[in-house]
Amino acid sequence: MTDRRSYWAWGMESQEPTPAKREAAAKAMSERFGVPLNTVQPRSVDQLDLRPSRITPPATLSEITTTDTYERAFHTYGHSFRDRVRKFAADFTNPPDVVAYPRNEADVAALLDWCGSAGYATTPFGGGSSVVGGVEAPEGYDGIVTIDMTRMDRVLEVDDVSRAVHVQAGALGPVLEAQLKPHGFTMRHFPQSFEYSTVGGWIVTRSGGHYATNETRIDEFVESIRMMTPAGPWESFRLPGSGAGPSPDRLALGSEGILGVVTEAWMRIQGRPRFRASTGISFPSLESVSEAARGIAQAKLWPANLRVLDPGEGAAMAGLDGKTAILIVGFESADVPQDAFIREAVSIARDAGGEVDDDEIVISPAPYGAITSSDAAGRQGAVGAWREAFISLPYDWNDITGLGIIADTFETSITWDRWPEFDRAVRGAMQDAMDRVCGGGTVTARFTHIYPDGPAPYYSFTVLGKPGSELSQWAEIKTAASDAVIAAGGTITHHHAVGRDHRPWYDRQRPEPFAAALKAAKKAVDPSSILNPGVLIDP
Amino acid sequence: MTDRRSYWAWGMESQEPTPAKREAAAKAMSERFGVPLNTVQPRSVDQLDLRPSRITPPATLSEITTTDTYERAFHTYGHSFRDRVRKFAADFTNPPDVVAYPRNEADVAALLDWCGSAGYATTPFGGGSSVVGGVEAPEGYDGIVTIDMTRMDRVLEVDDVSRAVHVQAGALGPVLEAQLKPHGFTMRHFPQSFEYSTVGGWIVTRSGGHYATNETRIDEFVESIRMMTPAGPWESFRLPGSGAGPSPDRLALGSEGILGVVTEAWMRIQGRPRFRASTGISFPSLESVSEAARGIAQAKLWPANLRVLDPGEGAAMAGLDGKTAILIVGFESADVPQDAFIREAVSIARDAGGEVDDDEIVISPAPYGAITSSDAAGRQGAVGAWREAFISLPYDWNDITGLGIIADTFETSITWDRWPEFDRAVRGAMQDAMDRVCGGGTVTARFTHIYPDGPAPYYSFTVLGKPGSELSQWAEIKTAASDAVIAAGGTITHHHAVGRDHRPWYDRQRPEPFAAALKAAKKAVDPSSILNPGVLIDP
Repeated sequence: MTDRRSYWAWGMESQEPTPAKREAAAKAMSERFGVPLNTVQPRSVDQLDLRPSRITPPATLSEITTTDTYERAFHTYGHSFRDRVRKFAADFTNPPDVVAYPRNEADVAALLDWCGSAGYATTPFGGGSSVVGGVEAPEGYDGIVTIDMTRMDRVLEVDDVSRAVHVQAGALGPVLEAQLKPHGFTMRHFPQSFEYSTVGGWIVTRSGGHYATNETRIDEFVESIRMMTPAGPWESFRLPGSGAGPSPDRLALGSEGILGVVTEAWMRIQGRPRFRASTGISFPSLESVSEAARGIAQAKLWPANLRVLDPGEGAAMAGLDGKTAILIVGFESADVPQDAFIREAVSIARDAGGEVDDDEIVISPAPYGAITSSDAAGRQGAVGAWREAFISLPYDWNDITGLGIIADTFETSITWDRWPEFDRAVRGAMQDAMDRVCGGGTVTARFTHIYPDGPAPYYSFTVLGKPGSELSQWAEIKTAASDAVIAAGGTITHHHAVGRDHRPWYDRQRPEPFAAALKAAKKAVDPSSILNPGVLIDP
Repeated sequence: MTDRRSYWAWGMESQEPTPAKREAAAKAMSERFGVPLNTVQPRSVDQLDLRPSRITPPATLSEITTTDTYERAFHTYGHSFRDRVRKFAADFTNPPDVVAYPRNEADVAALLDWCGSAGYATTPFGGGSSVVGGVEAPEGYDGIVTIDMTRMDRVLEVDDVSRAVHVQAGALGPVLEAQLKPHGFTMRHFPQSFEYSTVGGWIVTRSGGHYATNETRIDEFVESIRMMTPAGPWESFRLPGSGAGPSPDRLALGSEGILGVVTEAWMRIQGRPRFRASTGISFPSLESVSEAARGIAQAKLWPANLRVLDPGEGAAMAGLDGKTAILIVGFESADVPQDAFIREAVSIARDAGGEVDDDEIVISPAPYGAITSSDAAGRQGAVGAWREAFISLPYDWNDITGLGIIADTFETSITWDRWPEFDRAVRGAMQDAMDRVCGGGTVTARFTHIYPDGPAPYYSFTVLGKPGSELSQWAEIKTAASDAVIAAGGTITHHHAVGRDHRPWYDRQRPEPFAAALKAAKKAVDPSSILNPGVLIDP
């Protein structure tokens, strides 16, 4: 049998952890938390017991639809902590009835027509990496149809003059990159979900990516979006910039599938980096590293990488001593040497109390008179350790699912003037909740993206829950964190989207007249209210 | 009598050209076009004959409303060519009945309530610099009320940590800058309309500003918008970034007054530049200068200034020989020296065939070993000549209004791969139209803003029309230009907005389902359809 996505784990079935690997992880966690933890083995697909499909697609759609149990199970959830627990427990109470794989836009239109006339809830699905309940269908519908876009994954045209690509929206990150590579280009959009997220998914969730400053978000790389709505195709002109009314693209960006199914886009691409410069800079405190990050962002040096790890995160992710905060700075370019840029950044960081030896500043390829050089610029020491940990994290979580450990992350943003107080309030609320619910736990923070006017802090927490009660315990902690974020003026999400999980706090964040406007806009293009109902707004 | 805005000319009444100055301009134009041109003197305010105001505000609004003839005449139009001709001819067929000057948001809400209950067309008005019919009321309403926001012009708070300002939306450019200066900051948003455009106007028209690359548009400087809609206040969280659904701010940006009246905003501000570097680089053709601009933009050096003048524009605006194209490059920063940046930009430009002597590269303050230095970096030679011409242009037009000369500009954007063909198509259509309508005329182009994937070309044309027929002649030429722009895939406006004048072409540009969505969104927040009806969409 050919390999396919695991229905429960991050990755392919061939990458599912072996029983031995899961036993080893359980042993390690038992030692960490000081209590014995027992592994449970996940069910195989043929042990899953799903509600039978309640609907039958018309014969004209039979070639692109399936009611196969694996397909329906795989498409029931995304990859949040909550999803992992439910999948692992084989809790598939509301699976899609039909999964569709359109081959082209006509297929998408036909699916929308069918679902619209029947009133079926319709869930656009990219790589299934949502961590906010964005691909999960609501109760109360006679039928649920999930539209998996990954068969529409072709690059249609590369414009090497303007540096742009015309691509179908179902291309997963690596599928897109493989098609760009022969042309000498790269999208350079590397969210943690890169392997299993699509161009269309990036667009509708306003995905935060590789660049830590300036062009932080997929939004900045959109030239044009083509989206099939129940009311017909929504396609913007392909333009480098426009001031013709409110941007149609900016309404599609972040629409999370409630307005239509993105089918194609023209996206800005990059030359493959030839020049790099990077380093890791140590700081005695979160306060001082924050000041350095602020200085570099406000100087508008626009490093590709500018990430802050607090002491806890530095220990967990980069092997540091638990007292040292670290600032990872990286510049890259296809066109111009980057040594002048990193010298300015290091100078600002040192003024803020940062410590880095000149020979830890790695420039590649080395210019004459460079501080030092390496072919592996950006991959050495703490920087490299952090990068490896970042990529492997979703796989690590496969190993510990089912042990009762609650491990999750959330992210936000806040202006600099409110940052220290915001951090104290959020950590305090988190710690209180973890103490109360689970008798303790740890929370760490990093900055994933940094703006001239504020950081995007990303919090990670790990706590030992009670097997079987993880979801209610998680919900209590998540609620405390989200309440604290909103009360302190932060956004409920900087780059994980809203979905169903963030709805209560999103409702407190978005302006009330905007919600009325968005609801009316949705009704205008989705008159049967079939598209991802309940996400962002109520039908 | 204290000075006030001229009802017809750009600037204050004290700046209106004297009869002698207008005679001199007529003489110069007579020589240029080879025909005698006669000046006509504009009417004084007391010679204006306006339709009497048809409505009476409630007594509760008497302190903030007026039916004064000057006020109603001044608020009838913006500052387009069409507006100048009509004002000069004292053609005020559809003036507002009442002009209101709210002092605070409660006043704005009361005005919206009154207009909503009576069904009066309501026109939000900032500095009145619209060149697209954006502040002109439509026929067919029983009453027209213009809401002039310029009394709400205070800076409420400066956050020097995050570099942001909380400001009322009615602040004109210089009024804002004067309040920022004592804090050591600047907005650095300098559209050509700077003197007579407001923060709120910039926001609702997606104004293009000072920065020629990267942060080209007011959009990038918005942290939070507060807008009073008939359905209540629309206020976003103040954030450096958010991924919580489609951006509410991005729907307000470009809304041109159809969704509400922007009352306040939190805007990102800049440290005052201490480091500058600039130069002007000569090229033998528009093709080669375009390649240089593309190279610099794609290298993401992000100069503050990167403007291309074609040979015609170089002659008219910078005193060049009519055969030479010029690239103006300028870097600036409050925080870091800019010499490394300009060296890279010059290197790219020279590779593309540009010529500049090392001693024409001006760096300020001069670092050790700088190529050269000057306290006036950016203001020397062709660069300085262009800057002066840019600022004085609207005043120059005052002098020639009424002579029958049709002088106008339009701007667009296009991706690099289509640029040369686009330019030929647009210039060809323009020349044909001018030849047909007026027996000849000239068109020149520059790039005002430059993106990695394409330029924003800005076309200027001057042609001798027939006094009394200028408007129909202008309309024919404008139609030919706009048709050509849309047919070749350009945007109908990069930074002049849509208003009423661009509607037919905007309707061909925006996606049809987006228009339906926007119309529904407007109806949700403006149920009586009073706000700027006919702008962007039909009521």
